Amino acid sequence: MENIIIKPIGIVNSPYKGAKDIPIQGIFKSKTEANVELFDKYKKGLTDLDGFSHAILIYYFNKSDKEKIIGKPFLENKEHGVFAIRSPNRPNNLGISIVKISRVVNNKLYFTQVDIFDKTPLIDIKPYVKYFDSRDNVKSGWIDKHFINGVPKQTILK
Amino acid sequence: MENIIIKPIGIVNSPYKGAKDIPIQGIFKSKTEANVELFDKYKKGLTDLDGFSHAILIYYFNKSDKEKIIGKPFLENKEHGVFAIRSPNRPNNLGISIVKISRVVNNKLYFTQVDIFDKTPLIDIKPYVKYFDSRDNVKSGWIDKHFINGVPKQTILK
Repeated sequence: MENIIIKPIGIVNSPYKGAKDIPIQGIFKSKTEANVELFDKYKKGLTDLDGFSHAILIYYFNKSDKEKIIGKPFLENKEHGVFAIRSPNRPNNLGISIVKISRVVNNKLYFTQVDIFDKTPLIDIKPYVKYFDSRDNVKSGWIDKHFINGVPKQTILK
Repeated sequence: MENIIIKPIGIVNSPYKGAKDIPIQGIFKSKTEANVELFDKYKKGLTDLDGFSHAILIYYFNKSDKEKIIGKPFLENKEHGVFAIRSPNRPNNLGISIVKISRVVNNKLYFTQVDIFDKTPLIDIKPYVKYFDSRDNVKSGWIDKHFINGVPKQTILK
């Protein structure tokens, strides 16, 4: 099957410069704000996105060029298949985050619930649609044991 | 910013061969089953995914090579910015679907809630994690007016 060429559509400006401060998922550190800055030709694509409360960002883990088929997640030492974890060391090194939209100004989308490094190349933005993207009765596999009533145990919130 | 090379990790086997029968989102036609068939080298990456009820599939809209910055969604005739719709005619032509996992057998992940065409190249699989991916108090912009109490109006369910 043929390779696919992807062109970044913009860049993430984030206060997280390195692994030390970044949360495992942005929803656990809700107040920090970041933005994606689109290249000018894509600016008009943001039209009407400000009517949505959340967006799905797809981006390139440019600090990870490793591809591990079995890997260790942040949450525990046990290894799992890469498609059962959210590690950046994965085939194609694409990341996805649900973020909360603050506002759209010109070619910038400001958001909170950030878990993306500064200067990450952005690949796509999609509106988060509750009818398509939210699910009830979700089982979250090996991850469930790290949460009690939706709240992460111990050090996840560091 | 540099281009990124993506290698498909497998292929989608789906009963939907053309635009006629496919639902706008798989959750609205829940019983149809499809599978993704991973290339052998990625098979072990599925380990432990069967503990999750849902997965996020990222794939390449290989029938769409158009890139429209303003586009018309399936649901209405009004145009919106491409980042406020889920159209396949978008920069980088990547699609994302939340699907319900039926079972994992060897190099195949069987699932329902299908809205993907047959022979679509697969780019990534991520576990759907309720703590990361579900949100309350979601506003879905121009899409909300097409639903009443979570149920789509009129012909969306065709």
